[in-house]
Amino acid sequence: MHQMFYQAPLKVLMLCMFCLPQVMHADALVLLGAESMEIPSTWVRPGAAIIRCESILKSNVVQSCSRWLQEQQYRPWHLHTLKLLPLNPVPSDIEISRAQTPKPIDQLAAEIGLLPEELEPYGRSKAKVRLSLLDRLHSQPDGKYILVAGITPTPLGEGKSTVTIGLVQAMSAHLKLNSFACLRQPSQGPTFGVKGGAAGGGYAQVIPMEEFNLHLTGDIHAITAANNLVAAAIDARMLHEATQSDKALFNRLVPSVNGVRKFSPIQISRLQGLGIHKTDPASLTPQEVSAFARLDLDPSKITWHRVVDTNDRFLRKITVGQASTEKGQTRETGFDIAVASEIMAILALSDNLGDMRGRLGRMVVGTSRSGKPVTAEDLGVSGAVAVLMKDAIKPTLMQTLEGTPVFVHAGPFANIAHGNSSVLADKLALKLVGQDGFVVTEAGFGADIGMEKFFNIKCRASGLKPNVVVLVATVRALKMHGGGPNVSAGAPLPREYIDENLSLVARGCRSNLRKQIQIAKLFGVPVVVALNAFRTDTPAEIDLVCQIAKECGASDAVSCQHWSQGGRGCLELALAVKEAARQPTNFQFLYNTEMPIVEKIRTIAQKVYGADDIEVSPEVQRKIDYYNHQGYGSLPICMAKTHLSLSHMPDKKGAPTGFVLPIRDIRASVGAGFIYPLVGTMSTMPGLPTRPCFYDIDIDPVTEDIIGLF
Amino acid sequence: MHQMFYQAPLKVLMLCMFCLPQVMHADALVLLGAESMEIPSTWVRPGAAIIRCESILKSNVVQSCSRWLQEQQYRPWHLHTLKLLPLNPVPSDIEISRAQTPKPIDQLAAEIGLLPEELEPYGRSKAKVRLSLLDRLHSQPDGKYILVAGITPTPLGEGKSTVTIGLVQAMSAHLKLNSFACLRQPSQGPTFGVKGGAAGGGYAQVIPMEEFNLHLTGDIHAITAANNLVAAAIDARMLHEATQSDKALFNRLVPSVNGVRKFSPIQISRLQGLGIHKTDPASLTPQEVSAFARLDLDPSKITWHRVVDTNDRFLRKITVGQASTEKGQTRETGFDIAVASEIMAILALSDNLGDMRGRLGRMVVGTSRSGKPVTAEDLGVSGAVAVLMKDAIKPTLMQTLEGTPVFVHAGPFANIAHGNSSVLADKLALKLVGQDGFVVTEAGFGADIGMEKFFNIKCRASGLKPNVVVLVATVRALKMHGGGPNVSAGAPLPREYIDENLSLVARGCRSNLRKQIQIAKLFGVPVVVALNAFRTDTPAEIDLVCQIAKECGASDAVSCQHWSQGGRGCLELALAVKEAARQPTNFQFLYNTEMPIVEKIRTIAQKVYGADDIEVSPEVQRKIDYYNHQGYGSLPICMAKTHLSLSHMPDKKGAPTGFVLPIRDIRASVGAGFIYPLVGTMSTMPGLPTRPCFYDIDIDPVTEDIIGLF
Repeated sequence: MHQMFYQAPLKVLMLCMFCLPQVMHADALVLLGAESMEIPSTWVRPGAAIIRCESILKSNVVQSCSRWLQEQQYRPWHLHTLKLLPLNPVPSDIEISRAQTPKPIDQLAAEIGLLPEELEPYGRSKAKVRLSLLDRLHSQPDGKYILVAGITPTPLGEGKSTVTIGLVQAMSAHLKLNSFACLRQPSQGPTFGVKGGAAGGGYAQVIPMEEFNLHLTGDIHAITAANNLVAAAIDARMLHEATQSDKALFNRLVPSVNGVRKFSPIQISRLQGLGIHKTDPASLTPQEVSAFARLDLDPSKITWHRVVDTNDRFLRKITVGQASTEKGQTRETGFDIAVASEIMAILALSDNLGDMRGRLGRMVVGTSRSGKPVTAEDLGVSGAVAVLMKDAIKPTLMQTLEGTPVFVHAGPFANIAHGNSSVLADKLALKLVGQDGFVVTEAGFGADIGMEKFFNIKCRASGLKPNVVVLVATVRALKMHGGGPNVSAGAPLPREYIDENLSLVARGCRSNLRKQIQIAKLFGVPVVVALNAFRTDTPAEIDLVCQIAKECGASDAVSCQHWSQGGRGCLELALAVKEAARQPTNFQFLYNTEMPIVEKIRTIAQKVYGADDIEVSPEVQRKIDYYNHQGYGSLPICMAKTHLSLSHMPDKKGAPTGFVLPIRDIRASVGAGFIYPLVGTMSTMPGLPTRPCFYDIDIDPVTEDIIGLF
Repeated sequence: MHQMFYQAPLKVLMLCMFCLPQVMHADALVLLGAESMEIPSTWVRPGAAIIRCESILKSNVVQSCSRWLQEQQYRPWHLHTLKLLPLNPVPSDIEISRAQTPKPIDQLAAEIGLLPEELEPYGRSKAKVRLSLLDRLHSQPDGKYILVAGITPTPLGEGKSTVTIGLVQAMSAHLKLNSFACLRQPSQGPTFGVKGGAAGGGYAQVIPMEEFNLHLTGDIHAITAANNLVAAAIDARMLHEATQSDKALFNRLVPSVNGVRKFSPIQISRLQGLGIHKTDPASLTPQEVSAFARLDLDPSKITWHRVVDTNDRFLRKITVGQASTEKGQTRETGFDIAVASEIMAILALSDNLGDMRGRLGRMVVGTSRSGKPVTAEDLGVSGAVAVLMKDAIKPTLMQTLEGTPVFVHAGPFANIAHGNSSVLADKLALKLVGQDGFVVTEAGFGADIGMEKFFNIKCRASGLKPNVVVLVATVRALKMHGGGPNVSAGAPLPREYIDENLSLVARGCRSNLRKQIQIAKLFGVPVVVALNAFRTDTPAEIDLVCQIAKECGASDAVSCQHWSQGGRGCLELALAVKEAARQPTNFQFLYNTEMPIVEKIRTIAQKVYGADDIEVSPEVQRKIDYYNHQGYGSLPICMAKTHLSLSHMPDKKGAPTGFVLPIRDIRASVGAGFIYPLVGTMSTMPGLPTRPCFYDIDIDPVTEDIIGLF
């Protein structure tokens, strides 16, 4: 008999001996009961595997195939790449995205070695990938780990996402090197606020870009729901404690169900935290009942905020509880943008489901009147939060315009959060590309912000060591750092940015670019500078940047034209990165976490930002003392600082010196596992401008095409 | 040659003549070049189709199969049903759900005649269905349309969802009648607040119940995001108008891009609304500039609330805008539960994407200082809102415990919203079951609430006519209506509810049950009473209910045991419904929409609730006058009333008379298309109790099993 079936990721044919010649396109042939037969090479396509199988039971065949498949996993992928025919002038991002038909996501998954049971499709062009993949591939060596960071950007952004995508398009589609991009999921705030997508742009994009930029697979919505469940639990608990006796509280918290009272497991966890090792509710003393039933949260010391994924500035500071049903328990609080939630940071830094569950339980939401930290576990809500996050922990697979794989996972906003994509996405991708492959991951904003946190927080959490830093620069940003006039969104660009101006470029290179290269090299990782070339850049300007970059310590410096040309425009960068990845690295953290909190902050301020010193107010010092007392002193540091300058002053461009960094406030994200100093005035909730970009966005009711999304 | 391929929804085999006998399980055989060959009946399974095809080009074969498929669509489905082996005692809902392995959702889709391109899978057990299906099947006659409603419930709920699911399990899996259940997506508020799932329960459930009860396919998250984008746009716009001159506003709203100024289409739509038929920004007079640029919203007359899908009582009444960046523009407002958003009502009532887009634009968010309604279209945000809702408009396909199809779409909360699942889900299901099939859809709470709105609002919007009302009753609720003691969540049930008490039952039947039957018959639709039997009900009690129900005008009355037995326990009900659906109906609306608003409210109050009259305050009358002036006078009415009594007083059980219904407030949902009177005190945001059910919910980090979700 012969019969075709799919043992994805390969097309496999079971054949009887009569019909063999017809199967020219299979990846593998399973020969049943024909152990010794010779297969003429013209019968099968080059590279196809021959699997000989004595039994004709389908289950055995599937087993043989699976085993064989596992052995074969780590060869170069046979990617069906999507052809690009770039137009000039370059159309809008959504037009380019819509003009390309993505591969079915299960086809891409099969091409890169995923088994069908490891995939959870969400529509036809995105899918979540199960973490069981990490177990299956645990013995597989990792690929090379490439970080894309940038110089200090203008408010317009300098194209780190497009470089990331252009680079993997060049590697996978043109150089036939297995490569994966790991991107962050964009917030809907900017999508509908100030123009600017996060899916890349031009001919270096993730497609379909509208799915990337809208709900994706719902991770940020899950974070919002989880974050706000914790918030509702806090206020409701304070109300119930304020209006009930110890006994009434206890009776409600541990109700008699069919005559039986028992603690739920999460309540036993709280009891153990209180040092009460009892499991029978009746055996608690009145003091123990009170200690268990009262979190006794101090309303003025609640640190947990609600979140929305909308630029809603009127929620920055609000008063809640003003309905009569809340009995006068009003309180000032605020909303942050959802991606700034501690739950987003936990998602990004978790290593597995158990790790995430543990971190969610450790989240500190406030302080009791007696000064003890109160956690999500104490509130009894952390299990439910983990349940809300159970799908969000799986990275989402999408593809670039050229059909190469991309993981999208976890969050943006490197100024107010750590701003890196997830540890899990990077780890999965490193296994999937195999040891000769490349994973390109992106850190938000300038290297002083996103990259510093990538190294000191994310790599510390993951144990992964990066091989190369790609530092993205533009002539535009370099001219600004060299002393060019102010650049702002919406306003026309001054002439200096359109005409050749070598002296501005040179001054920008010798200040900000040099400093950012030095920062990367502090961590012992080679740097390749990627000049994201614009139409108005002159050859002399481009050459000058590349020359000075190399003088300043970059392993290489090249220009890239991915925006107008796709992967083909990034070939030089791809080769430079491949070359740099051969260099030995000497990766090291900037500080030891056992250093005192103030010293860790000072180290970052001086070595990374170039500050003379830091200024710590008595209030901040008091909080630091409290954190030390609570045992949080050895957490790493996640600075919240403007991305528009190496300093805390957005208008100080280049490489400012002679300043003292003011630490305005400090918070602890105990679940995420970092201390979070706020430098200067940092808003955790953006606002909408007079004309948000939603004015241009609509849907065609007949074709269902989206209009005006970038 | 022979070769197997899937032309879903059918398993199709292309065969060479040597190997035919092996293909016993195919739905169809494609014979290539063997037009006249006889196929012995033992070769194929009963009912399989034989498609003869001269060409062996695969594309032609696929075409032939598709054509054949379309012709065959409307026969009885060949559902692969899932076997149930009910345990006694009945395990928890999540244990029952987890013990059953759902069919792959694409298999179910294929079985009920969906084409692969009409399906968008979300994971392995749920998928969105594209609306293009309606076009493909537009000439197909509809199936029978069955509404499940209930008597006035206790606070514990009486099992309408389980009856709905048990009924389709009986019809599809046991009687082999094509049938579809159309359910509402549950809110996460109750899921984590007070125990009670919405996926049904016991052996009549939608599976996997945790996916049903958590994020599903993200529709409520999309509604939340869309609703809150509108809210952010309102407050930001008021701020920008308060701080800028007409000219500055206009220049920002219509900026010069590369030297060209133009209106976006949504701005032209606003201009036309203002009676300004110009397209060149430069040609507007200063008066026109001012009229265009200033919405001039009156902060005290903003009716739009923010929403979260969390029981967060502290957000019922809040003050926003207290950060210094908002320049003193503080304002009192509040959050509602997400499912109460007007956008949810629009989702449920929309007929297609264009209809939804139109309704979203017509949503009124507040009133200008000069008394004009201001819409989402005026804010420029309705296109973006439609984009956020583009996937939510597609119903989600899931399955029951016995593998029969279910649509989940749109929203709950029939007390404060209209509380019905979507028009689109019902329409798609009516086509899919075909003319001999049944669609069972559910209306929230008692027939006075959900059913009245189903008829007067949803059926008016859809044009569909129901064939049968199934009225769900329990002995427990009937005893309460007969004068039994108070029933409340969490407290043990009084003895009256456990021991036989025929006089309480009889009094409950002759008050509330009789009244609810009469209400259904007001609309000219036959009623079948379904007594959802509990373990403690005695045969005499059950017989009594069925006997009185028939005396009161029910076509039939039967008891059902679906909770403990699945579809098998609902066979009698299924047969009764099938029989009742043969009766001619004389469906009519309760009121003509052209009646004055007050008369429409009075009609509902008197004929449905049994009130003597209504009481309309001068403030409400003033608003009604305003709505009439604005042309909203002919919208239907969506009452917001307690679900715990036919009256506005939750403790008045049975069939209260001699009361006057107070209309406390009245609102207009112009986009959804109804006027929304508030009766008595209705909260649009539930709260969390002292011990929310999240205390029991957790996830096993190793097996990924969810624990404690009902």
